[in-house]
Amino acid sequence: MAQQVSTPKGTRDFGPAEMNRRNYIFNTIKEVFHNYGFSQIETPAMENLSTLLGKYGAEGDKLLFKILNSGNFTDKISKESLDAQNYIEITNNISEKGLRYDLTVPFARFVVQHRNDIVFPFKRYQIQPVWRADKPQKGRYREFYQCDVDIIGSKSLFNEFELIQIIDDVFAKLGISVTLKLNNRKILSGIAEAIGEADKFVAITVAIDKIDKIGLEKVEDELRANELSEDAIVKLRPILTNKSNTDETFKLIESIIGNTETGKAGIEEMNVIFGYIRDHKLGINVELDLSLARGLNYYTGAIFEVKANDVEIGSICGGGRYDNLTGIFGLKDVSGVGVSFGADRIYDVMTQLELFPKQTDEYSTALLVNFGENEERACIEIAKKLRKEEISCIVFPEKSKLDKQFKFANSHNIPFVIIVGESEIANGTATIKNMATGEQTTIPQDKITDFIK
Amino acid sequence: MAQQVSTPKGTRDFGPAEMNRRNYIFNTIKEVFHNYGFSQIETPAMENLSTLLGKYGAEGDKLLFKILNSGNFTDKISKESLDAQNYIEITNNISEKGLRYDLTVPFARFVVQHRNDIVFPFKRYQIQPVWRADKPQKGRYREFYQCDVDIIGSKSLFNEFELIQIIDDVFAKLGISVTLKLNNRKILSGIAEAIGEADKFVAITVAIDKIDKIGLEKVEDELRANELSEDAIVKLRPILTNKSNTDETFKLIESIIGNTETGKAGIEEMNVIFGYIRDHKLGINVELDLSLARGLNYYTGAIFEVKANDVEIGSICGGGRYDNLTGIFGLKDVSGVGVSFGADRIYDVMTQLELFPKQTDEYSTALLVNFGENEERACIEIAKKLRKEEISCIVFPEKSKLDKQFKFANSHNIPFVIIVGESEIANGTATIKNMATGEQTTIPQDKITDFIK
Repeated sequence: MAQQVSTPKGTRDFGPAEMNRRNYIFNTIKEVFHNYGFSQIETPAMENLSTLLGKYGAEGDKLLFKILNSGNFTDKISKESLDAQNYIEITNNISEKGLRYDLTVPFARFVVQHRNDIVFPFKRYQIQPVWRADKPQKGRYREFYQCDVDIIGSKSLFNEFELIQIIDDVFAKLGISVTLKLNNRKILSGIAEAIGEADKFVAITVAIDKIDKIGLEKVEDELRANELSEDAIVKLRPILTNKSNTDETFKLIESIIGNTETGKAGIEEMNVIFGYIRDHKLGINVELDLSLARGLNYYTGAIFEVKANDVEIGSICGGGRYDNLTGIFGLKDVSGVGVSFGADRIYDVMTQLELFPKQTDEYSTALLVNFGENEERACIEIAKKLRKEEISCIVFPEKSKLDKQFKFANSHNIPFVIIVGESEIANGTATIKNMATGEQTTIPQDKITDFIK
Repeated sequence: MAQQVSTPKGTRDFGPAEMNRRNYIFNTIKEVFHNYGFSQIETPAMENLSTLLGKYGAEGDKLLFKILNSGNFTDKISKESLDAQNYIEITNNISEKGLRYDLTVPFARFVVQHRNDIVFPFKRYQIQPVWRADKPQKGRYREFYQCDVDIIGSKSLFNEFELIQIIDDVFAKLGISVTLKLNNRKILSGIAEAIGEADKFVAITVAIDKIDKIGLEKVEDELRANELSEDAIVKLRPILTNKSNTDETFKLIESIIGNTETGKAGIEEMNVIFGYIRDHKLGINVELDLSLARGLNYYTGAIFEVKANDVEIGSICGGGRYDNLTGIFGLKDVSGVGVSFGADRIYDVMTQLELFPKQTDEYSTALLVNFGENEERACIEIAKKLRKEEISCIVFPEKSKLDKQFKFANSHNIPFVIIVGESEIANGTATIKNMATGEQTTIPQDKITDFIK
């Protein structure tokens, strides 16, 4: 009896069908990154806990998967800490490595560690899994891929525009209709200043971030809970409820924060970025959205968020400018900007809208039927020629019922079945069945490659 | 001051140059796998320890990286086990997941878990990192990639031949001259029987496995230590020292084990496999090598090992037939055969023999020089056209000294620099510098794509 075996909670196997589709997404994204001259890097799954701890807040520290030190660690567990149930202290003593939680902190570590070998501006991308000990739920996994692209070591707003071009190209290639929302942390900062609550900047951005999810009333409750004055809340309201187009929004924000220094700088930045967008035609719709805040506090300039137009699923890509990412490791003044593509959500959107090309479901292009020793020998030679032309094909590995072999072809969505029986061998021909139409054609063996192409 | 940061002991970052080369290897291997109709799967980095423990021997259990359970685990640590320094018991109580140690056991778990969805024969490949808490040393890492390809659910020896074809194609594409050594566990079993030591089969294969490393004398010492009779050792000697060609080796082994049942079956299998090799021309040299044993005891039939002809580095690919892999999870009678490509060693061989194509060192095909706002605008449009043709190019992200921009092109091995200055804009031209030859050509802007192609 087979045992009940399973993957750990919150993790997944990807079988051939899913992998074909996932690879289609990753390869499309990679192609675009390469077109823009970005290079791939990879970092280890494990990082020293000293690298990871304290970078994601106290909650994040708890969500790190920690790896037990090898060997006998018992002398590292003190009776006192055990009595006090101080598991955090014990953890620190018996574990010094953790699984990466995102790609951002490892990237910052990479840049600091290799700073003398890197020629800036450094254009890198990284596609690897990350792990979080979150409570698993629908659409939230303990292992999932992130797909990050960043330019680091250049303050030019050209880079913001380049990321916008990349977003445009990726979603055009994938066939997903999207809207790109832009905002700027300096504008948000200017707003906090203009409403007289500069010191409540973080609380304000956190609240703004939730407007789509919880609505105006609850956001205002939260602002009150954070001790914002009623005056400030009233002043903030036109921004929270703004639904104007980009030009009108520029005017609104100009009128509110145009006289604050940071706010003015933010408006200028966004003018440059929207200038690029005007000058160079894009396929996607881009909006200035003042309610966009992005949760992460390391952003300092432009922020990005992409939403699918035809599926309700939250953002499928997002990012922004950070002026001090490597600062967490003591390396100052290295500004960067980047976005991250959410592969799992993109997968869901494409599945829902049936956007995967038919070929992603095909395991191979042709199946060569195996009738026995002689026929197999002929098939091996035909297969050789197909593969020389990079056409994928499968010789069925043993003589077996035709029925079974055709079932195999069907279940693997193989579009062509090639039949080389006794009479075909005698005539130097092959019969090719088109599995979609059912049509059968008998042709000379040296024409098979052309036929299938 | 930047902090001293580093990856954990035994793990590595892969920067752009290494990733380009690694991707060249992985993509070449994947291409071949696809040509033969293999499908990719991925399994999670973490497996339940119940899946992993006991599958790699007591030593393997120690080398598993174990993940600490989340939350407060202190009540799972008993004072008694702490007093007894029983860290294995404590580990079992505070850790229930581990990092995968190889791809074979997770694959067996995958097949058992998804057996009702899989249409056999199942042709799968898997390229993912594995982790072992080994003592790190030159060439041995705690995180490294494995690259496995298997056909499972078919006993036909055609599959053995297909793997040989794959090995042939992969190393031909990579340009590495190799020798493939073949043997068969049933032949080894027959030998143990013929020399009257059938019950010492494991000790004999382990000893044979070391003949290349430690020589005849030490192997015989080890056999004596395992209580093989002197008579048996003498009978084994012609096999251990055999250096004949494949035909002679077939005769030798026929004379020694032709009358044992298992031995005879092994010889028959190898006759079929070498029959395939004779019938269908291969590029690589294939030898029957009786001293090949492969350490892993789950092999039951043919075994494979590939060595580079021009670099001393041990095997760069190996595998074999296993009749009972999923048996570890209670699912019987699922026979499979597979090989694993050693990406790290292949990388070292290719580096040493300088086999990587020049393009793998190029970060991008063209750099467009940035002279300021107007010129940048023209460059963005030119870059768009190049990228539409999937030509990678970089617009330097800010106006800066020509010197710095050329240095960037050089350090990134970019073969073409495209210069669009004031006069070029006026004339609708661009000047292209070939960085290898130093040659400069001025051409109309709409001819750039063709020129670079």
